Amino acid sequence: MNRTTLVLVVGACIRSLVSFSCIAVACLMNDLDRISIVMVHTTDSGNLGSAARAMKTMGIHDLRLVAPEDSPDTAKAIARASGAADLLLAARQFDTLEEALADCSLVFGASARKRTIPWPLITPPVMADLVLKEPVEGRVAVLFGREDNGLTNEELSLCHYHVTIPCSDEYCVLNVSQAIQVICYQLRQSLVERPKGEEAALDTGSFGLREWDAPPATGEEMERFFRHLEETLVALEFLKHENPGQLMTRMRRMFGRIRPDHMEVNVLRGVLTAMQKKLRGQ
Amino acid sequence: MNRTTLVLVVGACIRSLVSFSCIAVACLMNDLDRISIVMVHTTDSGNLGSAARAMKTMGIHDLRLVAPEDSPDTAKAIARASGAADLLLAARQFDTLEEALADCSLVFGASARKRTIPWPLITPPVMADLVLKEPVEGRVAVLFGREDNGLTNEELSLCHYHVTIPCSDEYCVLNVSQAIQVICYQLRQSLVERPKGEEAALDTGSFGLREWDAPPATGEEMERFFRHLEETLVALEFLKHENPGQLMTRMRRMFGRIRPDHMEVNVLRGVLTAMQKKLRGQ
Repeated sequence: MNRTTLVLVVGACIRSLVSFSCIAVACLMNDLDRISIVMVHTTDSGNLGSAARAMKTMGIHDLRLVAPEDSPDTAKAIARASGAADLLLAARQFDTLEEALADCSLVFGASARKRTIPWPLITPPVMADLVLKEPVEGRVAVLFGREDNGLTNEELSLCHYHVTIPCSDEYCVLNVSQAIQVICYQLRQSLVERPKGEEAALDTGSFGLREWDAPPATGEEMERFFRHLEETLVALEFLKHENPGQLMTRMRRMFGRIRPDHMEVNVLRGVLTAMQKKLRGQ
Repeated sequence: MNRTTLVLVVGACIRSLVSFSCIAVACLMNDLDRISIVMVHTTDSGNLGSAARAMKTMGIHDLRLVAPEDSPDTAKAIARASGAADLLLAARQFDTLEEALADCSLVFGASARKRTIPWPLITPPVMADLVLKEPVEGRVAVLFGREDNGLTNEELSLCHYHVTIPCSDEYCVLNVSQAIQVICYQLRQSLVERPKGEEAALDTGSFGLREWDAPPATGEEMERFFRHLEETLVALEFLKHENPGQLMTRMRRMFGRIRPDHMEVNVLRGVLTAMQKKLRGQ
């Protein structure tokens, strides 16, 4: 192979590798990567740290700070960020909200109250569904305002929707980093967890998890158990054989709810056997 | 109108007012009033304050502290509580978790990881649905552990379910008060906000219906039952007292799933008592 051909082949390989990597990255990227959390004029750096932690636990990484009144690199902020100090220190800072939103196509503003001019006002689950329906190229921003006053009317007018976290009439002032935790949790629930199928309705008669350490007892095993139980209760004189009343029915209802696994029903039968042995020893 | 008539009319008005007030109070009380948030061995009082705030914004008021390592009435805690300082300072303190759970019939433990003996593990939306299906008399507790280590295996064995907040594989360590905010948000969503908006279809759950024929057994009744069970198993020589192994933990897990009601636990204890009498008769 001459040198020109070698260069062409290597070039082709590199291009393929890059394309493959882009495809791989595109597959790995999920909806959460296009979400930016924007904090406007935050006064307490502790809240910046807590916000960074809240975001990172939910897999959201892009934090944008508009004219923060306290610096994100204080000891307090870094302590509250805990394992998310990297995210906090990587946060971009902007002088104005317009600059922070320049690349965003869908903007939600966190708002605790109705404004003078009504704006489309939605809750977090509805917000998450709107994000799901948004074309994949669009960056989504969620805005949070000052600790004492929230977002101004002018800032809210840059939003497509206002989102309010449903809360108690008695006291409805969430700390800003707590609000961010709730929003990020709901986004993850709707964009990542629910599609995984984790929220499939669980029959509470089942075990509540996919892995258990023994298979469920079969119907036959359970019937043998109920016969063994009835014999033992009669031997104990707890159950009058000629008048069993509703006791065995209640036992069936109760153990029906328990859904014992194979090991558990064997343990229960072991207890009954031990009891019968002791009784025969008398 | 003569005096007698006046007295009768006033009496009727008073009775109507009292009845109306009772009805009004009954209508105002909702499922959130039976929820207790239990924080175990919290080390940072700032988290106690944030937790109180998180609860109050979602309309949940009963905070219980088990042996807090930092006092809830520090300046830091009160500052972080903001408008929820009243809730924080009204929190009851307990020496042991068992005491804190004595009046609770359904207990969820926040857990970040799988345990050696698998336990029913669910997410917050499923937890909230279970609370919805629970008979109305039962108090519900959600447990949160130490900031660094969470709940111990022993503390988790007192729970019926373990609840895990779905989070990023990269970093999955929520601050305890942030976790409480998420749990309280989800409870309010499912118990108050969603029913306001739509008919909630109730699937059959652990009890299968909101009315049952006996109230759920309390935490204290269950603890007495487990002590009685252990004594009986030792007397049967089924449980070696010096090496109980994992048997009692498995029994707790199994009977935790059963959710006996008050009558059923009495029947079970009657069976144990009958066994002990027969053994003594030998």
